[in-house]
Amino acid sequence: MAEGRIPVAQLARFITSVLASLGLPAADAETVGRLMAQAEAQGSDGHGAIRLAPYVKRIRAGGYNLTPDIRVTQERAAMALLDGDNGFGHLVMEKAARIAIEKARNCGIAWVGSHHSNHAGPASLYARMALEHDMVALYFAVGNANHLPPWGGLDMLLSTNPIAVAVPAGEEAPIVLDMATTVAAYGKVKAKAQRGEQMPVGWMIDRQGQPLTDPTRSDEGFLMPIGGYKGYGLSLIVGLLAGTLNGAAMGSQVIDFNKDYETTTNTGQAIAVIDPAAFGDVDAFKARVDQVIREMRGSERMPGVDRIWLPGEQSHAKREENERLGLALPPALRAQLDALATEVGVPALAQA
Amino acid sequence: MAEGRIPVAQLARFITSVLASLGLPAADAETVGRLMAQAEAQGSDGHGAIRLAPYVKRIRAGGYNLTPDIRVTQERAAMALLDGDNGFGHLVMEKAARIAIEKARNCGIAWVGSHHSNHAGPASLYARMALEHDMVALYFAVGNANHLPPWGGLDMLLSTNPIAVAVPAGEEAPIVLDMATTVAAYGKVKAKAQRGEQMPVGWMIDRQGQPLTDPTRSDEGFLMPIGGYKGYGLSLIVGLLAGTLNGAAMGSQVIDFNKDYETTTNTGQAIAVIDPAAFGDVDAFKARVDQVIREMRGSERMPGVDRIWLPGEQSHAKREENERLGLALPPALRAQLDALATEVGVPALAQA
Repeated sequence: MAEGRIPVAQLARFITSVLASLGLPAADAETVGRLMAQAEAQGSDGHGAIRLAPYVKRIRAGGYNLTPDIRVTQERAAMALLDGDNGFGHLVMEKAARIAIEKARNCGIAWVGSHHSNHAGPASLYARMALEHDMVALYFAVGNANHLPPWGGLDMLLSTNPIAVAVPAGEEAPIVLDMATTVAAYGKVKAKAQRGEQMPVGWMIDRQGQPLTDPTRSDEGFLMPIGGYKGYGLSLIVGLLAGTLNGAAMGSQVIDFNKDYETTTNTGQAIAVIDPAAFGDVDAFKARVDQVIREMRGSERMPGVDRIWLPGEQSHAKREENERLGLALPPALRAQLDALATEVGVPALAQA
Repeated sequence: MAEGRIPVAQLARFITSVLASLGLPAADAETVGRLMAQAEAQGSDGHGAIRLAPYVKRIRAGGYNLTPDIRVTQERAAMALLDGDNGFGHLVMEKAARIAIEKARNCGIAWVGSHHSNHAGPASLYARMALEHDMVALYFAVGNANHLPPWGGLDMLLSTNPIAVAVPAGEEAPIVLDMATTVAAYGKVKAKAQRGEQMPVGWMIDRQGQPLTDPTRSDEGFLMPIGGYKGYGLSLIVGLLAGTLNGAAMGSQVIDFNKDYETTTNTGQAIAVIDPAAFGDVDAFKARVDQVIREMRGSERMPGVDRIWLPGEQSHAKREENERLGLALPPALRAQLDALATEVGVPALAQA
């Protein structure tokens, strides 16, 4: 383990102890801790340990149900609707992924939606769960704060509504797309603010349509959708599939979880799992994916480009490095976690 | 019917007669004619009647199987894989949509993929088929010519790989997103060329990375993905889901149907259908969609913006106008269709 770096499992233990100290049942605290540490390890810095402080704040404000009855309320052979009962989103969506994988094995594809869930971290965490079963997964979520208006509008009625897709490969690392439908995810804006950095032009604009580059002023503007009106359309569709279809919050119903720590968010998410075994030989499929990967990587490159990346390849490399060397957490985040430990009365991260 | 405009049904009859004269069985020619006329009516000008001439060229070159045995080769409760047997894509994907709708009614969701299909027109045609059953549909396709490289690359290994999603509403028009994963679809480039217009900066760049605005020089450059590397990721994922998963062409295997009229394209598409009835009361769902639509439309607007549009709303209006007043086909297209009529020996469009 490199000096000053924290083993991923140690961060998971620390998060688990913080959440357990506040009343989350041990097994649930462990699940959330493990998934949050995984998010940190894969470089999803906007959705990893940085979220522990706001989660704690929400627990203290009574915004979570710490002992939820997460249950299937609607079901058919290839679908289920999960009522998250206002529990941690990680618990809801891990269960959703498990159900979808099982149903996909029988039916070829399955779709599981959630309502009364909560923020669950990076979308790719759940899409990736299908990979160990050699399955493909698509994940959609309604973001937990609105940061953009409909195209041409000024009222913030849409969130960054992310899409993740995981596709298993053979000898190559799997392809894992994880993208907000905005040029930047709001978590990245928060990470910029925490690091004291400016945002590039194009991430956000203010209400006059001027570029906004100071992340500490982010509540004075809104995020830009990718491809203009196309990104607006994508964000809207993801919101309809993950929110409206499930009876979860969408549009003006979305609670800004960065400002309101008490109101039930009624977060909606959805995961679809496809079993490539239903389409034919799985190894042949994975070999075809390998071939696509190698073709993309082997393309002639533009001047100045060292390497062509596949979606998820950099996260994969980061995960492997962090598993091997430990996590290099930014000092501001370390300080925040230490303060949290003191606040709730558990051993600091270094002692976890 | 307004003067100089052609009833949609008349265009459908004309296309049907052209295709039937070349050996397509009557019922199949009628299906393709109806769907191509629908594409024209909804304003998908890159995928409507403009495609008849290249289809005819492909038929004459022996590139199509005119009497295909379009059949399910893999099946589970909620999925099917269709072998299109190199028939018209319209026939393959209409069948795919029908199967997916039926399976979704039983299972809550269904996914049907195709291989050895062909170009099928605008993606929204097939997603929209779920609407009359009050169902949601997602459609993915591998485009029939590669127009962009992987992000940072120069080899054209990816197509515009479109996504369409249709969501039924209650009193409002349904939401129908239909978008290429590039800033512009290649069909729009062709339409610009046919109209003798220049392309806006941002649609295409040349191999030196400079803007390309002359649509007649489109084979000297490539289309730009939406959101840069994100659009590359989306195009790749759509290609994996609609192509690679189905054993259809992807990457370097994609045949440029604008240049090669003989080789089997092995086109892959996929349609997923979700039955909202599986999630709860359908009317309540449609009322929630109405509410989302009205919120978006009712947003405060940026200066100079007259109206906020929902995805598919403009196509919907165009379809209604064209159904009422008839199609106003561009003179160049009319001339092309008249030449085709003479070539194959059927009555001209005006007499169809």
